[in-house]
Amino acid sequence: MTENLAAATHRQETAPGLFVCFEGGDGAGKSTQVRLLAEALESRGSSVVVTRQPGGTPLGARIRELVLHGDHVSARAEALLFAADKAHHVDELIRPALERGQVVVTDRYVDSAITYQGTGRELGRDEITALQHWAVGGLLPDLTIVLDVSPEAGRRRRGDVHDRLESEADDFHAAVRRGYLELAARDPERYLVLDATLSVEHLHAAVVDGVARAQDRR
Amino acid sequence: MTENLAAATHRQETAPGLFVCFEGGDGAGKSTQVRLLAEALESRGSSVVVTRQPGGTPLGARIRELVLHGDHVSARAEALLFAADKAHHVDELIRPALERGQVVVTDRYVDSAITYQGTGRELGRDEITALQHWAVGGLLPDLTIVLDVSPEAGRRRRGDVHDRLESEADDFHAAVRRGYLELAARDPERYLVLDATLSVEHLHAAVVDGVARAQDRR
Repeated sequence: MTENLAAATHRQETAPGLFVCFEGGDGAGKSTQVRLLAEALESRGSSVVVTRQPGGTPLGARIRELVLHGDHVSARAEALLFAADKAHHVDELIRPALERGQVVVTDRYVDSAITYQGTGRELGRDEITALQHWAVGGLLPDLTIVLDVSPEAGRRRRGDVHDRLESEADDFHAAVRRGYLELAARDPERYLVLDATLSVEHLHAAVVDGVARAQDRR
Repeated sequence: MTENLAAATHRQETAPGLFVCFEGGDGAGKSTQVRLLAEALESRGSSVVVTRQPGGTPLGARIRELVLHGDHVSARAEALLFAADKAHHVDELIRPALERGQVVVTDRYVDSAITYQGTGRELGRDEITALQHWAVGGLLPDLTIVLDVSPEAGRRRRGDVHDRLESEADDFHAAVRRGYLELAARDPERYLVLDATLSVEHLHAAVVDGVARAQDRR
């Protein structure tokens, strides 16, 4: 068996737009920074498309419903359904916007699938990575901004009630955090890791600076 | 990028049951031979599970509905949705039956996806193969019986009306036929190619003989 999905994966370099992704655990402040970045780019005359994963298209929402409210779904089937959502999102929304020259800002993308599905589940991270990269036809963000938050700080920001599952949940969030940092470490040029406990204004300034540098690189 | 879905694919050798698949174009007579084989095996005391792809589970039927009756679905999203159906079918129905020692007879399996989706579409056959093999966790049939039929004979058997699209359709069916024969040629031990224009009784005798040999090999 020599077939290799990854062999068909390549970075899309041709689309004229800019593709920016925010990643990070729940409570890291992604949605605030997505909104502020979109406003800043629009105020400078860019045409911006804001989206989110999973479930950013009508089909994606129906797939998400199948997974969350249907019968028991096996781990492989779930991973393939989420990958189908991603493929559709890219083909119908993200790639066309980039080809029109727009800036696409997404709240979560392939790295969320890799860190969440690849953490503490039956499937390996390499398999989820290959599947996700194939699903998006190799289209990866020009810049991924990781809002990095410790499990304790994330819990405080989410306002989680402390209970006896706390330490187990902390272990999971710590593994997710480690997953993001590992991905960022592999490709520092295309990742910007920011301390999510900084003020909203400080974070926004760092985001705008990072996006400007990503635009210059293109 | 070194991730490789195919690396995670391996033939499942441990399940005690027997896994038989029928493949071939529409009008080849698969459903008749599936039924006759199941009856023959049951009359000899085997416990038989008959199923079909795609859509052999409730979730699979809902996925199929999404693809066929929903919005436009991109080629990659469609391939991933069909793969999700396959993964669920294997995890929930086929593998448990084999582990209970039952004989599973399926009308179509991965080779249908490879030949149909990989013929005349945007996606390569190697990619569909890697995706399908990953979806089923490497579980391939002990015996795949290809009911081989020429495009002309298939058209006669289906009772297709001749029209101006006839030759285009014939080209497609010829490519599908070639796809099956290529798969069979790569692994002759696990494939049995039969001329679908033989009588039902002759075909059934050849099927029973091939299944007995597959049982002996295990």
